[in-house]
Amino acid sequence: MQASSKEPQYLKSEADAASKSLIASQFLKTRSNLNQIVNNADNNFVKRFYNLDHNSYMEGSLTAQTKELMGLSVSAALRCDDCINYHIIQSWRLGATKLQQEESINIALIIGGSIVIPHLRRAYALLAELYSDPQ
Amino acid sequence: MQASSKEPQYLKSEADAASKSLIASQFLKTRSNLNQIVNNADNNFVKRFYNLDHNSYMEGSLTAQTKELMGLSVSAALRCDDCINYHIIQSWRLGATKLQQEESINIALIIGGSIVIPHLRRAYALLAELYSDPQ
Amino acid sequence: MQASSKEPQYLKSEADAASKSLIASQFLKTRSNLNQIVNNADNNFVKRFYNLDHNSYMEGSLTAQTKELMGLSVSAALRCDDCINYHIIQSWRLGATKLQQEESINIALIIGGSIVIPHLRRAYALLAELYSDPQ
Amino acid sequence: MQASSKEPQYLKSEADAASKSLIASQFLKTRSNLNQIVNNADNNFVKRFYNLDHNSYMEGSLTAQTKELMGLSVSAALRCDDCINYHIIQSWRLGATKLQQEESINIALIIGGSIVIPHLRRAYALLAELYSDPQ
Amino acid sequence: MQASSKEPQYLKSEADAASKSLIASQFLKTRSNLNQIVNNADNNFVKRFYNLDHNSYMEGSLTAQTKELMGLSVSAALRCDDCINYHIIQSWRLGATKLQQEESINIALIIGGSIVIPHLRRAYALLAELYSDPQ
Amino acid sequence: MQASSKEPQYLKSEADAASKSLIASQFLKTRSNLNQIVNNADNNFVKRFYNLDHNSYMEGSLTAQTKELMGLSVSAALRCDDCINYHIIQSWRLGATKLQQEESINIALIIGGSIVIPHLRRAYALLAELYSDPQ
Repeated sequence: MQASSKEPQYLKSEADAASKSLIASQFLKTRSNLNQIVNNADNNFVKRFYNLDHNSYMEGSLTAQTKELMGLSVSAALRCDDCINYHIIQSWRLGATKLQQEESINIALIIGGSIVIPHLRRAYALLAELYSDPQ
Repeated sequence: MQASSKEPQYLKSEADAASKSLIASQFLKTRSNLNQIVNNADNNFVKRFYNLDHNSYMEGSLTAQTKELMGLSVSAALRCDDCINYHIIQSWRLGATKLQQEESINIALIIGGSIVIPHLRRAYALLAELYSDPQ
Repeated sequence: MQASSKEPQYLKSEADAASKSLIASQFLKTRSNLNQIVNNADNNFVKRFYNLDHNSYMEGSLTAQTKELMGLSVSAALRCDDCINYHIIQSWRLGATKLQQEESINIALIIGGSIVIPHLRRAYALLAELYSDPQ
Repeated sequence: MQASSKEPQYLKSEADAASKSLIASQFLKTRSNLNQIVNNADNNFVKRFYNLDHNSYMEGSLTAQTKELMGLSVSAALRCDDCINYHIIQSWRLGATKLQQEESINIALIIGGSIVIPHLRRAYALLAELYSDPQ
Repeated sequence: MQASSKEPQYLKSEADAASKSLIASQFLKTRSNLNQIVNNADNNFVKRFYNLDHNSYMEGSLTAQTKELMGLSVSAALRCDDCINYHIIQSWRLGATKLQQEESINIALIIGGSIVIPHLRRAYALLAELYSDPQ
Repeated sequence: MQASSKEPQYLKSEADAASKSLIASQFLKTRSNLNQIVNNADNNFVKRFYNLDHNSYMEGSLTAQTKELMGLSVSAALRCDDCINYHIIQSWRLGATKLQQEESINIALIIGGSIVIPHLRRAYALLAELYSDPQ
């Protein structure tokens, strides 16, 4: 069968996330700065891995939104704060609700146990900012 | 917000899985035998954990099918064969396609790396049996 | 058999820990702030998990002190700084000696390997403050 | 402070465990056969690590029994069946009750999550045999 | 900088490994059978990942032998028996000595801790067969 | 066979690393301060483990440089920033090239998956400083 290959349609940009949330803004800026250093090193293998990574979350038999929420759940279970932040922002950009994000983290919590809780706490801080009502 | 609480509607039973697949049959039998031993021990905390675990996969803001596929992806990333088998069977019972199962494992593969491959191989053996054409 | 259900008798409070140790004080404050955000989200499943987590460390066939030291050992082996801090403070509140805490971390060190050492270093910084002689 | 250094007083031998439980018997035999192969290789570093590992579970500020139960909890959280079997047998030899063993596994279950369950099931099968009433 | 891209020169074949060692023979056969099932599923993403995985171990700034021994060390630290078997066989095919293989496992042992020992034992059983004197 | 026991010949000192790289300087200072606290606690078991850890990276059947690069790869796969920093500095002190360090991280990336990427980014920031041209 064919792997997915269609770029998702984002409802919002990374800049939207950064302007809505200070946590998102700081995360995205640090990530961008470090990725620039990685790009400068120009390692072919890393580029190929990044490319394959990007392709994992395309529209396919599962929607891009579902894949990003799945990425969130796996990242929370593996306890990677940067990965959690990234997939929360991506899911938000693709229109996932706050409750869908919480339920994805709950799957990680039950499978991964209380060791997930410190990461859950920080995830909820980002969710609170991204889904806050406009003032 | 309220956590999900509605039991999913299964399209097929565990017995259907066992009659379709030898791998499923052996897995379900061993799991049932061992769960009987756990039940006999009658440890209250374990019972409460099992109950909470069961509740994690109810219909909610995400469908039960999506949650089972998410459970598959997390289980593959955490490299737990029994958990992988369980969530593949549950997803199959809820009508997930073979490609949806493969894409869930792909998320685990890119996030978790080549260390996932031995488990992916065994997962594909179960998928091949469950989704084989009737003869 | 019955799971444990009796609240432990703490010899000291979280406030005592915070006044004795700057590391404890900062950890407890950040944890409290983030838990407030989690509480505000009011997710039923998370509440149930927190409740079950709380019940895990009750007096039982093992004392609450032993369970907290065990929680420390598991947390160190799983390399979770926040969890290590929490169980060190709880064990201190229940009267564990510094050497008992060190021996619990040693079990994590031998089972988990040198990858535990960065967390052991930070744990010892907290232990040094909590068990320092009054001036 | 001084690390522990006193050998524990075992109430029962490995042979007692093997005669009480088929699971224990098979585990101990396979382990012994493989350790013979490791011994034949005569790698100095491995010998030194084995020696340090042995010293971790001596009587100290924590009793040897508590350390073995702690080893069980860490092993269950890290999901290592051989390690779980070993520490269950050691704890049994040192007089731990079945409920103490269950509570040690419960700490691993809440911290490590449902991914621990397949290992918990197999642990309970060994516990059932070791703690069965004589006929 | 450019990633490595040159195929290594193997001194021995997989068939040589299988004829020298029963453990290798059984591992390679099971692996081949399961890979056939994966190939039949024809998932594009899995194929691309397998291809990238293959490219990771080409001759480069580090020799292919060093990379395979490094793969052995990482696999032992991550506790993946199939991966350990694979990299031991690959390192053997590229002319690594038994002691080089042992030292690679020792790095995993000190970093990963005693939880690595059950896998070390099984690794030594394969090493004993592959490096046995001809009779 | 005999384990390795010869101290490596460093081409550069830790002070050299600290004067070349701000990241290295801050890491080494924090590490030194925390190790002082660990030393003050004077726990015999920890001392013995530190000693064994030190011996793991001596010249042997594999060179000390290869062992440090292997330590880097394992540390990246196990996602330990402090361990990654340490082994990058050690490999640099022993004359490893930037590309050799990158290829060691690539082994961790393919085996450990995208969850390694946040650590890879930070590793590349340290590599960029250590291997920058003098001005």
